[in-house]
Amino acid sequence: MNAIGKYEFLAEPFRCDFNGRLMYSTLGNYMLNAADYQSSERGFGWNELKRENKAWVLSRFVMEMSEMPGPYDRFDIATWVESVMRYFTYRNWSVIGKDGKVYGYGTSVWAMIDLTTRQPADIFSVNDGRIRNFVSPDDKVPIDSPSRVKMDGKNATLIREIDVTYSDLDVNGHVNSIRYIEHVLDLFPTQWHQLNHITRIEVAYVAESHYGDRLRFYEERQDDNSKCFMITRLNDDTEQEVVRCRIVYPLHTSQM
Amino acid sequence: MNAIGKYEFLAEPFRCDFNGRLMYSTLGNYMLNAADYQSSERGFGWNELKRENKAWVLSRFVMEMSEMPGPYDRFDIATWVESVMRYFTYRNWSVIGKDGKVYGYGTSVWAMIDLTTRQPADIFSVNDGRIRNFVSPDDKVPIDSPSRVKMDGKNATLIREIDVTYSDLDVNGHVNSIRYIEHVLDLFPTQWHQLNHITRIEVAYVAESHYGDRLRFYEERQDDNSKCFMITRLNDDTEQEVVRCRIVYPLHTSQM
Repeated sequence: MNAIGKYEFLAEPFRCDFNGRLMYSTLGNYMLNAADYQSSERGFGWNELKRENKAWVLSRFVMEMSEMPGPYDRFDIATWVESVMRYFTYRNWSVIGKDGKVYGYGTSVWAMIDLTTRQPADIFSVNDGRIRNFVSPDDKVPIDSPSRVKMDGKNATLIREIDVTYSDLDVNGHVNSIRYIEHVLDLFPTQWHQLNHITRIEVAYVAESHYGDRLRFYEERQDDNSKCFMITRLNDDTEQEVVRCRIVYPLHTSQM
Repeated sequence: MNAIGKYEFLAEPFRCDFNGRLMYSTLGNYMLNAADYQSSERGFGWNELKRENKAWVLSRFVMEMSEMPGPYDRFDIATWVESVMRYFTYRNWSVIGKDGKVYGYGTSVWAMIDLTTRQPADIFSVNDGRIRNFVSPDDKVPIDSPSRVKMDGKNATLIREIDVTYSDLDVNGHVNSIRYIEHVLDLFPTQWHQLNHITRIEVAYVAESHYGDRLRFYEERQDDNSKCFMITRLNDDTEQEVVRCRIVYPLHTSQM
């Protein structure tokens, strides 16, 4: 078995938006599923880690798409670990149509934690460091690495507050990584989504949020083709940053 | 090709709730996907209808589950048309584990509309009435048919209002059928979801809602083990009913 796992997906018509493009949130879920299949097949997946009371934690996540699949398009998501250190791994994805069309790429940084202490765990301690056998350092993706999403804070405006609900929560009781992206995309009016094609979504996961938290969304426009968002959790008058997200959307895409 | 289509699905761990059970919303999406695969393979699917400027419209939808798959459980969703008339079809589903375990069933009523006039269309006009060749009248499911979700209205209490957002909308620009279920489940506190296992969800889709609408959720407790919800759309001071939903949850399931 080589380092790269490749899985076929279908753009279900009911998971496409009103522009007839697969939703970023659905694609993000598919990419995380592919990562899980790839790691499970190789002995360092969610199930294996759970047996050792450990879990993967997504720290940075980037999706950069030049195009999105449309209804009934079949495509492959390939994913692999580009590098692994004691406390971090870098993982990439490519999203390629059955006809060879390149839709886009993803890249990410993951940590591992001990589920009891919530502290970082040694990645090589799982399954005798088996992950070392499945690293593909020469397979880069042609997109920028996750950057530190910079916000100067002074110009950030509170634009929405919502309470965490049942459907936000994943199997661990935390707000689902992809759900934050969905909430951020919902901050844009539908008309905006009609006129703009998002080319890159970059997320930094800073802390976890839970049921009982109130999420606050702050917006800061960076330049003409990107916006940054900070999400905080508010609980008992304590406000803590949980996510930063940058959305990039070249204007007039169709003329480029 | 016979009348029944059967498709394998996997309960992705990241689509399970904090109780470790597949979410009803995800299962509902899978069931609609299975219906789409089954009808597409037989010449009366979304794509075929679109060519004729028609679409299926879900009118009633029932999911009744004695158990929900857990993380990594593989299961089959079988689906078939039980009967077809000029303006309606009845469609069923079964959800069966790979080990033969019966998780539950679904049943539904669908209409067909002309996309220009939004009026009911003759189902037999599509593909020379091809659907007639794929009806399986003897395959019933052992659950109650969709009932008229009765609400007396006087005891209904407005409990939440939300604006329709981008992620609510499907490829047709309407609020996604499954999304209403998600919003209704989010009306219950997380602690309630920890203590109760929902056994039946019944939805009547009355009208469509769109971006720009404000959704209002009214609750009416029916008895000790069910609640009814009415969802309306508010736009320009006009309020119109769009969905009724009944949630059934036998108490003390574990003792039964």
